Amino acid sequence: MQELAGVELKVVSSGSFKDGDETWTIRRGRFEEGLSAGIDVINVSHGDFTFTVLPTRGMGIWYASLGDQRIGWNSPVRMPVHPAFVNLQSRNGLGWLDGFNELICRCGLSFNGPPGQDEAVGSPIESNITLHGKVANIAAHSIEIIDRENGEIGVSGIVDESTLFGPQLRLKSSITTRLGENAFTVRDEITNLGSTSTELQLLYHTNFGDPFLEEGGKFSVPASRVIPRDAHAAKDVEDYQAYLAPTAGYSEQAYFFETLADAEGRSVALLESRDGSRGLSLSFRKDQLPCFTQWKCTQPLKDGYVTGLEPGTNYPNFKTFERRHGRVVVLEAGATYKTKLTLAVHSSPDEVNAVRDRIKQLQGDCSPEVLSQPSAPYCALD
Amino acid sequence: MQELAGVELKVVSSGSFKDGDETWTIRRGRFEEGLSAGIDVINVSHGDFTFTVLPTRGMGIWYASLGDQRIGWNSPVRMPVHPAFVNLQSRNGLGWLDGFNELICRCGLSFNGPPGQDEAVGSPIESNITLHGKVANIAAHSIEIIDRENGEIGVSGIVDESTLFGPQLRLKSSITTRLGENAFTVRDEITNLGSTSTELQLLYHTNFGDPFLEEGGKFSVPASRVIPRDAHAAKDVEDYQAYLAPTAGYSEQAYFFETLADAEGRSVALLESRDGSRGLSLSFRKDQLPCFTQWKCTQPLKDGYVTGLEPGTNYPNFKTFERRHGRVVVLEAGATYKTKLTLAVHSSPDEVNAVRDRIKQLQGDCSPEVLSQPSAPYCALD
Amino acid sequence: MQELAGVELKVVSSGSFKDGDETWTIRRGRFEEGLSAGIDVINVSHGDFTFTVLPTRGMGIWYASLGDQRIGWNSPVRMPVHPAFVNLQSRNGLGWLDGFNELICRCGLSFNGPPGQDEAVGSPIESNITLHGKVANIAAHSIEIIDRENGEIGVSGIVDESTLFGPQLRLKSSITTRLGENAFTVRDEITNLGSTSTELQLLYHTNFGDPFLEEGGKFSVPASRVIPRDAHAAKDVEDYQAYLAPTAGYSEQAYFFETLADAEGRSVALLESRDGSRGLSLSFRKDQLPCFTQWKCTQPLKDGYVTGLEPGTNYPNFKTFERRHGRVVVLEAGATYKTKLTLAVHSSPDEVNAVRDRIKQLQGDCSPEVLSQPSAPYCALD
Repeated sequence: MQELAGVELKVVSSGSFKDGDETWTIRRGRFEEGLSAGIDVINVSHGDFTFTVLPTRGMGIWYASLGDQRIGWNSPVRMPVHPAFVNLQSRNGLGWLDGFNELICRCGLSFNGPPGQDEAVGSPIESNITLHGKVANIAAHSIEIIDRENGEIGVSGIVDESTLFGPQLRLKSSITTRLGENAFTVRDEITNLGSTSTELQLLYHTNFGDPFLEEGGKFSVPASRVIPRDAHAAKDVEDYQAYLAPTAGYSEQAYFFETLADAEGRSVALLESRDGSRGLSLSFRKDQLPCFTQWKCTQPLKDGYVTGLEPGTNYPNFKTFERRHGRVVVLEAGATYKTKLTLAVHSSPDEVNAVRDRIKQLQGDCSPEVLSQPSAPYCALD
Repeated sequence: MQELAGVELKVVSSGSFKDGDETWTIRRGRFEEGLSAGIDVINVSHGDFTFTVLPTRGMGIWYASLGDQRIGWNSPVRMPVHPAFVNLQSRNGLGWLDGFNELICRCGLSFNGPPGQDEAVGSPIESNITLHGKVANIAAHSIEIIDRENGEIGVSGIVDESTLFGPQLRLKSSITTRLGENAFTVRDEITNLGSTSTELQLLYHTNFGDPFLEEGGKFSVPASRVIPRDAHAAKDVEDYQAYLAPTAGYSEQAYFFETLADAEGRSVALLESRDGSRGLSLSFRKDQLPCFTQWKCTQPLKDGYVTGLEPGTNYPNFKTFERRHGRVVVLEAGATYKTKLTLAVHSSPDEVNAVRDRIKQLQGDCSPEVLSQPSAPYCALD
Repeated sequence: MQELAGVELKVVSSGSFKDGDETWTIRRGRFEEGLSAGIDVINVSHGDFTFTVLPTRGMGIWYASLGDQRIGWNSPVRMPVHPAFVNLQSRNGLGWLDGFNELICRCGLSFNGPPGQDEAVGSPIESNITLHGKVANIAAHSIEIIDRENGEIGVSGIVDESTLFGPQLRLKSSITTRLGENAFTVRDEITNLGSTSTELQLLYHTNFGDPFLEEGGKFSVPASRVIPRDAHAAKDVEDYQAYLAPTAGYSEQAYFFETLADAEGRSVALLESRDGSRGLSLSFRKDQLPCFTQWKCTQPLKDGYVTGLEPGTNYPNFKTFERRHGRVVVLEAGATYKTKLTLAVHSSPDEVNAVRDRIKQLQGDCSPEVLSQPSAPYCALD
C-alpha cells in the first residue's frame, strides 16, 4: 500500500532486476473524492523513475517523475477530473479545458482542434466538434498490467470512441518502461472497427512545466520550416526556441513545424534547461505523426506555466481546414493506424548533448526556413 | 458467482420448479471498467432462457438469450454505457446514439423522436428536445427482485424523469418471466406526479440482429395500413416485410403501421427466420401503444445489422408534428399510463406457425393498404 | 449504522456534552442507487437537531430537522442528484433544475442567474452562462469532519471551480453547529487561486417549504427598499410579506431588497408561521451579501411549495446586467471573499419574538420604501 494524492495504491505487480539491486513496482488505485472520484490510477515505477496512467481519462499519462523532480505541469485543474464532470459542450465547446492537466493528453480521435460546426461533413452525428475531441474523456476498458514483457513493464487498455451511424475508432494503448531507463514509450494502435472508411485526427498534447521549463530553457526539433500560427505568434517567431520566465499577461503562442526525420521516419524534439544540464526528449515518427506543434504558454505559475510539444497527424486548426489541406487521416475499414512515442528524462549534460547531437544530425546542413508570417497551407488566415 | 462481460454476478435469488427438474436464478452485479463502470446489471434465468436488465440505463433490457442464441443486436456501441458518459446534447442533439445497444430501449418519457426546438411549447424547460428523450439514460432506484410472484421471477425498479417547473414522470417497470416459458414481459406504469397534466411520449425501441434477423427473414404485423416514413423508404415499401442480408451502403428505412388488434386491444408482431423455423414475437396492446414503427437497418454487421420493431404511443417524428396530429399523450395529474409488452422466443416451426396464424386471424380478410408515398397525417412532409 | 433514505450511515464521530446528558453524532454514507448513486452524505446531529450535507453536490445542505419537523422543501426532484446526471447545458441552459432540491444551494461561483451569452466578456470560456452556475454540481474534496472545535461539530470541504485560461475559484466551506443550539452556521471562503483578478457571483438559495411555510406565514427582513422583480411580482408587492397556501396555477414571484444591518453589517431574515409559534431565521452580513432576494413559489405541494430567502452578492439577474450595475464582485489575485450565514430554528413564540424584535430594531423608525414597479438599477426592464 502507498498513498498518492489521497489514493490508496495497491501493489499489483513487483519484482527486482539487475541481479536484484533494483526493484520495480506497479500499483493501482481509485480516487474516492471530489472531481477525481471513480478515476482509476496506475503507477509504474522502477528505480527513481515513475509514471502514472489514468485509464479513466482515455489512458492519459498524468505525470512522471525522476527522484523528486515532477515531469508534467501544474494546471489550474489541480487533480484528475472524471469525465462525468467534464461537459465538452460547455464553455462554448471549450469544456475540455475543465479536465486538462496531464503530461500527455491525446486529442482526437475523430477530431481535434478548436470547436465549431464542421460544415463539410454531411452527418450531424459527426459535425459537432468540441475542443480537442472526446478521447481524453472516455474511460478505458480491458486494462491489463504488462509484467516484464521484453524487459518492459507498464499497462495497456482499450478506449472505444464509437457510436451508431458514426465513427468506430478503437484505441489500444500500451504504455511501458524498460527496466533501467528513465523513459516510457506509448504505443498506440487505432483501428477502424466499422465497415467503411472513417476520419482520424490524433495529436499528443505533451506538456512540460516547471522545473524543466524555465527562463532561457530551449526547444529544438529538426525542421525544414517553422511557421507561426497567427500574427501574435509571428511577432516572436525568431525566438521560438527560447522560453520566458513565468510572465504576467503572457498570451499563448504556437508554432507549426515541418520536421525532419531519418530514413526510417524517426525524429526527436528536446526541451532542455538553460544550462543544458537536464532535459526532456520526445521521440516520435514523422511518418506516423507528420505535423508538429510547439505551444508556448509561459504564463504565471498559478495559471499554468507550460509548453506543449505536440506531434500529431495534423496541426490543431479547425478540422474543416485541416481536411482541406489533406491533414486528416482517412482510415479504411478494418485498418489500424499505429504510433509510437517515447518520452525520456535526461539528467546530465552528456545525456542532453546526445539528444542535441542527434537533432543536429537530423537537421543536417540546412537551417530551417522560419516564416515571418502565418502562411497557407499551415494556417487558417482570416 | 458467475461472470458476464467481466462483471461478477452474485446470486440474489434462486430455486427450482417443475418438481425440482429445472432451476431458476437471479444474479446481480456492477460493471467496474470503461464506459460501463458503475452500471448495475441484473440477470434473470431459468432453463435455457436468460435476460439481462440494466437498471442504471432506465431499466432497459440489454439482451436475452436462449441456449447459445443471443437475442439482441451487435451495436457499434459494444458495451452498456453509463449515462454519465452519454451527453444527450452532443452530436447536435444525437448524443443518445453513443449509448444505444439494448434489446429493448425506451424512448421517452417527455419526448422522443429527432432533436430540435419544440416551438409549440412555452417553457424553455421542455422545448429543448434531444434524440429519443432522457429515460434510457436515467438510473433506476428502488430496484427489487421479484422472487416467484404468480409463478414469475424478475426485477422491478423506478425511474424518475422529473424536474422543477417541468414534467414529473415516474416510470415503475417490472420485467418478469414465467417459469418454463421462453419469454419475458415488461409491465410499465408511468405516473404523472405533478399537479397539472403533462405530456408523455413512449416508444419501445425493440431491436433484433443476427441470427434472428437474416436475409429473407420476414416481418409481420396485422395492419390496416402501411406507410413509408419518407421517399427513401417509399422506394422499397412493397418489400417492407422482407429483410436483406447485411448490405454495404444500406441506409435505414422506416415504415409506420396502423395495426389491427383483437377486441381487447391485443396485437402481435413477428420476426421470423427465412425458413420459418424460429422467430421472435412482440405482443403489445394497440390501446396502449397505438403506433407501430418498423425500423430496417440491414447495414453491415460491423455497423449494427438490426431491425427495430417499435410499438409506441406515437410515431418517432418530431414531437411538434406528433402533437399536431394528436399523437402525444396528455397525462392528467396523478394519472397512470400502463403498458404491457411480451417478447417471446420461438424455436420451432410449430411455435412460429402459431404466431403467424394469430397474425392472420387478426388481419382477417382485408389486406393492408400499402401506401406508395409518405403521407399525412403520418409523415412530416417537407 | 443507521439508515437515511436507503444510505447506510456509518458513525465517524460521536460524543456527549452537558455532563453527558446530551449526545452528538456525525455519520457518513454514500448513496448506491438511482440518480443519487455515488453521492456522499454527511449527517450531523445533536439532541433533536440534525442537518445533512452533500459534499458531492458542492457542499450543499440537503435538509435539516428538529425532532420530526423537516426543514427544507419537497422538490419534484425527490432525491439528491449526482452531478453526473445533471447536464447544465440541457433544457436550454436550465438543466440545473434537474438537480435542485436542497435546503441551501449555492448559486455561483463565476456566475449565477438565468442562462445566456454574456457578451460583455471577451473569452468564450467564460461567456457561456447556465442557470445558477456550476458550484452546486461540483464535488468537494478534502472533506473533513469537524469534531468539537470551539464547541462546534460539523464538516468542511473544498470545491474547486477551476479551468485553464479561466476562473480559478476555490470554495472552502465549513458547516457547523454549536452543541445545544438548533442552528447551523455556514462559513465560506472563496479564494481566487489565479494570478489575475476574476469575477465572483454568489447567492445562497435557501429554501423552505411545508411545514414552516404555510398560508398566512410571514416573511420579514429589515429593509430600506423593496423592489418587485417584474410586472408579475409588482401586482402583489404590497403583500410581499405574506404567503399563500399551496395554490394551483401560482407562478413564481420575486422581490429584491435593500436590507438594513447593524454597524457590524449583521442582518437577519425571518420566516414565521401564521401563529408566530415557530420560525426559521437566516442571519447574514450585509457587507458580505448586500443583495437579498425573496422567492415566492407557493405552487401546489406536488410541484414544490417553497419560498427562497436568498442573500447574495448580487440579485439573480443575468450577469451582464448585474455587472453593469456594479453587483459582480471582482476578486483580486490571491484574495479571499468570506461569508457567514446562520440558519436557526425557532420553536417557541418567545424565540420567534426575539428575532422579530431584532428585525424591528434594525428597521428602526423608517418603513421600507415599497416600489410599485420593477425599477432600475435593480431590475432588467425590457
